[in-house]
Amino acid sequence: MTQPFAEGWSSEVMHEHGSTFSLKVTAKLDSVQSKYQLIEIYDTETYGKLMVIDGSNMVTTRDNFLYHEMLAHTALFTHPDPRRVLIIGGGDCGTLREVLKHPTVEKVWQIDIDEMVTRMSEKYFPELCESNHDPRANIMFADGIQWIKDCEAGSLDVIIVDCTDPVGPAVGLFAEDFYRDCLRALGSKGLLMQQSESPLYHTNTIIKQMHIDLSNAGAGSSHTVPFPQPIYPTGWWSCTMASQDLDVTSFRIEDSAEKPFRTEYYNAEIHAAALAVPEFMRRALGMGDD
Amino acid sequence: MTQPFAEGWSSEVMHEHGSTFSLKVTAKLDSVQSKYQLIEIYDTETYGKLMVIDGSNMVTTRDNFLYHEMLAHTALFTHPDPRRVLIIGGGDCGTLREVLKHPTVEKVWQIDIDEMVTRMSEKYFPELCESNHDPRANIMFADGIQWIKDCEAGSLDVIIVDCTDPVGPAVGLFAEDFYRDCLRALGSKGLLMQQSESPLYHTNTIIKQMHIDLSNAGAGSSHTVPFPQPIYPTGWWSCTMASQDLDVTSFRIEDSAEKPFRTEYYNAEIHAAALAVPEFMRRALGMGDD
Repeated sequence: MTQPFAEGWSSEVMHEHGSTFSLKVTAKLDSVQSKYQLIEIYDTETYGKLMVIDGSNMVTTRDNFLYHEMLAHTALFTHPDPRRVLIIGGGDCGTLREVLKHPTVEKVWQIDIDEMVTRMSEKYFPELCESNHDPRANIMFADGIQWIKDCEAGSLDVIIVDCTDPVGPAVGLFAEDFYRDCLRALGSKGLLMQQSESPLYHTNTIIKQMHIDLSNAGAGSSHTVPFPQPIYPTGWWSCTMASQDLDVTSFRIEDSAEKPFRTEYYNAEIHAAALAVPEFMRRALGMGDD
Repeated sequence: MTQPFAEGWSSEVMHEHGSTFSLKVTAKLDSVQSKYQLIEIYDTETYGKLMVIDGSNMVTTRDNFLYHEMLAHTALFTHPDPRRVLIIGGGDCGTLREVLKHPTVEKVWQIDIDEMVTRMSEKYFPELCESNHDPRANIMFADGIQWIKDCEAGSLDVIIVDCTDPVGPAVGLFAEDFYRDCLRALGSKGLLMQQSESPLYHTNTIIKQMHIDLSNAGAGSSHTVPFPQPIYPTGWWSCTMASQDLDVTSFRIEDSAEKPFRTEYYNAEIHAAALAVPEFMRRALGMGDD
């Protein structure tokens, strides 16, 4: 729930981390308690619309491009030939829009547990939903954890887990069993991409554990990709790629450099750059020299 | 001045940008009105000590490594043989400490207009001041703008402008005349490095203008380097390099890869990565295709 932190502002208070990020709001536009979570929509002074779920900032009009582009394009230019893509979560449809920009993509399934997120996004973030009627898109509302369990082995090329923090409905998405099911559905050459929280706050906890869980689940390669995201805690976020047999640190650099669509953040240079690992992360993740 | 934003928190309110970042504080340790500005020191719950100047977050124990390492090491590994280094501003001495890690450096002058910043740093951030008595270090308190005017032409290899936002005492540091004086003091092969605000907030204003001013002042090459900095607005910050004749987008990659000192963020991969330019910045700075 949004905290009464300062009058006229929407604030995400990170009690555990002792920091708060606030946006000046001009109006509260909507508030819906779905079966799963509280979804609030604000108009802000400088970030456009803001969606907040259970007190956590999810999306603003102004800065969502960073997150959506990095999740979608880093994953799709890493896979050699992405045709069948599954998005778990992603109810605001921004990742779906980016995925559908790739001409190789033949079919995308988007499975968010909470239909209300998509309904609110259609109303307040129509630009994120502009590709929802693409004939390649299949938008479903169901439990992604169960769906992936029932998935035929090797039937997907890319899975993007575009989820909330590992509390509430998303907790089962940060787990070895879930990763094992994903890797089975992907087959040996498929790619798993998942949002993985803040490098400053979560390297020694969530990110480190994710690499351990991915390895135990059968990933031969995994790599965390940092990027800026002003409305998320610390303004510095990450996503993590994994595969059984693909080297997730190489990508289709020429295709990326000649991408047939416009982006705001992502390009081939930025993709290569995002693979660089800060020293403290190298050490924490056991990649370093000391 | 710190705003009364929320009880028990120190908040930097960006009225113009409609965003606020707050840190939970456990105590106010000091507050000094110097001749130039109000300097406050807090103990925080999770970021260690915090220095605030005129309401803007300057340094915390926890995350200052990002800013200081990127300013110092990116500059010093870009110059082919940095021996004579000038730091303008930098009163907390964190940049000085990083510069002095380079064995090529023979002499460093640090010129901050406000002695109180250094006195407060010595008391509350002693780790940043641990190299202040290095025989190569010359810590002075004076007007850097005048000092650089009086500097002999070609007498410096690197100038690092580690200053506050372009308001108050730092306003003259974001100006064509100042850049012309710096480039003269550096000679044709010298390198100028300056902190340059947030890519999200300031690309179309401060950063764009800085490149124009640098070019007008005689820089043949200039390049902006983004990096994460959680306590600064948006959590995403930048510094900008310029030179008359050096190509500031190449660097001593082997020396960087074999650096004889420990860092927390910077390494050769991160240096190369920081040279990548996001699409919206390419377009705004006239580097792009469209």
